Amino acid sequence: MKKKKAIVLVSGGLDSCVTAAIASRNYETYFLHTNYKQVTAKREKKAFLDIANYYNVKKKMIVDINYLQQIGGSSLTDKDIKIYSETKDSIPNTYVPFRNANLLAIAVAWAEVVGARAIFIGAMEEDSTGYPDCREEFFEKYNKMIELGTKPQTHIEVKTPIIHNAKSEVVKIGKKLKAPFRLTWSCYQNSRKACGMCESCKLRINAFKKAGLKDEIPYKIDIDWNN
Amino acid sequence: MKKKKAIVLVSGGLDSCVTAAIASRNYETYFLHTNYKQVTAKREKKAFLDIANYYNVKKKMIVDINYLQQIGGSSLTDKDIKIYSETKDSIPNTYVPFRNANLLAIAVAWAEVVGARAIFIGAMEEDSTGYPDCREEFFEKYNKMIELGTKPQTHIEVKTPIIHNAKSEVVKIGKKLKAPFRLTWSCYQNSRKACGMCESCKLRINAFKKAGLKDEIPYKIDIDWNN
Repeated sequence: MKKKKAIVLVSGGLDSCVTAAIASRNYETYFLHTNYKQVTAKREKKAFLDIANYYNVKKKMIVDINYLQQIGGSSLTDKDIKIYSETKDSIPNTYVPFRNANLLAIAVAWAEVVGARAIFIGAMEEDSTGYPDCREEFFEKYNKMIELGTKPQTHIEVKTPIIHNAKSEVVKIGKKLKAPFRLTWSCYQNSRKACGMCESCKLRINAFKKAGLKDEIPYKIDIDWNN
Repeated sequence: MKKKKAIVLVSGGLDSCVTAAIASRNYETYFLHTNYKQVTAKREKKAFLDIANYYNVKKKMIVDINYLQQIGGSSLTDKDIKIYSETKDSIPNTYVPFRNANLLAIAVAWAEVVGARAIFIGAMEEDSTGYPDCREEFFEKYNKMIELGTKPQTHIEVKTPIIHNAKSEVVKIGKKLKAPFRLTWSCYQNSRKACGMCESCKLRINAFKKAGLKDEIPYKIDIDWNN
């Protein structure tokens, strides 16, 4: 029987790579990558292309959404705002306003054109405390909106397979599904080796340690994986 | 008392111009225009700038969403598909998949950054028979999704003031509110004068006739406004 089609949002990071691994088990996949001139855009694009190649996807698409820079309002899109993850009002300033809704809108448009039934996104509630558009309830409402905003003969559903997992669990799932960790990129720096020091590297390293595994990407600093 | 802020989606056409007139009565307005390399992109941009100037908006933003061309699937975004408005399956091929959801996602992101309470869009059910994302139910679901996908302290609502109006009623409302019809552009051609022959011109001319008014833009052909 012919496999159903799915769009997978692949940033090039760890979470979306594992999400891609999950989607690839049961769907013919279409990988979507978005670029908004973030600092690590080039490195993430390479990771995306490598992962798409690894999974031998049906089609891949890279989309420029530079308008997120025009809109600003986040330390990830406005260089005048310093990255600051701990805030009094509980939402870190790395929150890019309504980003997931924007990414999903693009994915749904593509899904409608190619006839895909599902859209996979690697959102995680725990990992993104305070980001309103990473909560399961948000995705539920999004699905209801899709049902009314697309052609009646289509049924497109957003799927969030790792939404309730801790990052260490995501690593374990990825390991089991042979997700190509070595091709992913999480570091905030644009470099050949990951810095191992930034917030994103720290989260990743801890997740691998907790999972009892050694990361497959090179780091600039020595890391004791047994501790 | 300080006016509340609103984002207004302004294409440069008649409907969005009247919607802008309605919004401008009670809100401090931010005009958003999107461009996806459609044939009349340049002419519509000029109309947008002229209308924004007329209303002396607080801010205006022009956003490139060329990805709609990459995605294709519509006669308005894929030049290999001939414009064909009458179809057997009831949805014209001028339907750009999930376009309104994409436009609104951009508007909501901007609304969150500037602190706007409302987003005005000139969607009309009658005018766009079969377009799923022009129906009132779609916008209702969209509003529920916004509520969950944005910061808890924000309340942003999509407003569709002309959704149940016929185009001739929209003309009457615009006349009453002194909407600058002469600055708008509806024709499918990119020219100094409107062709008066395309589907869009025909709809516009008929609306003015039904409203008992004469259009203010120049046409290439002679039009008997009393008949």
